Amino acid sequence: MTEPCTCPGPPYYSVIFANQRTTKDQAGYEAMADRMFQLAQQQPGYLGADTARDAEGFGITVSYWRDLEAIENWRINSEHLEAQQLGREKWYETFSLRVAKVERG
Amino acid sequence: MTEPCTCPGPPYYSVIFANQRTTKDQAGYEAMADRMFQLAQQQPGYLGADTARDAEGFGITVSYWRDLEAIENWRINSEHLEAQQLGREKWYETFSLRVAKVERG
Repeated sequence: MTEPCTCPGPPYYSVIFANQRTTKDQAGYEAMADRMFQLAQQQPGYLGADTARDAEGFGITVSYWRDLEAIENWRINSEHLEAQQLGREKWYETFSLRVAKVERG
Repeated sequence: MTEPCTCPGPPYYSVIFANQRTTKDQAGYEAMADRMFQLAQQQPGYLGADTARDAEGFGITVSYWRDLEAIENWRINSEHLEAQQLGREKWYETFSLRVAKVERG
């Protein structure tokens, strides 16, 4: 799901999502992750994303966005809200989520 | 090398380093990565780091810092400069590096 950012010069925004997968429901998780990636790409202000998950199930996804409004619209997207709830309920053991303004790079 | 951030409330800073490993020198790379992680932990203003690398060698490391001065001091650390050069020469096929101010999370 890595799609190199077609980033403008700074400033723009990043969402840093680090998480530990549970061992539950791998097929359901993968299907939803693919769907969320497709859906994110269609959002106004989406610029790209980097993602990696290691063999122990620890993953980081950093997505890039034009501005805070684009991030907020994505956060409250109804399909995405449903995915977030399933993530909390069964897919993620732990996670952290940060919003950061890219100043360089 | 993931060490959960003992982060204060925002604002603080993140360095988002995404990279594709070459297939060269796995042992040398791992030894240096371990050393750099140890060294980073000793830097003033270091707060923590998340890291993940997938089976295809694509990795993301996000490190967290008190301020831009701490990041700059780490960037110009002499051992770290040497590691950066080896990274460009043989360990990384491609990489991106961003500095971003954490505003939420």
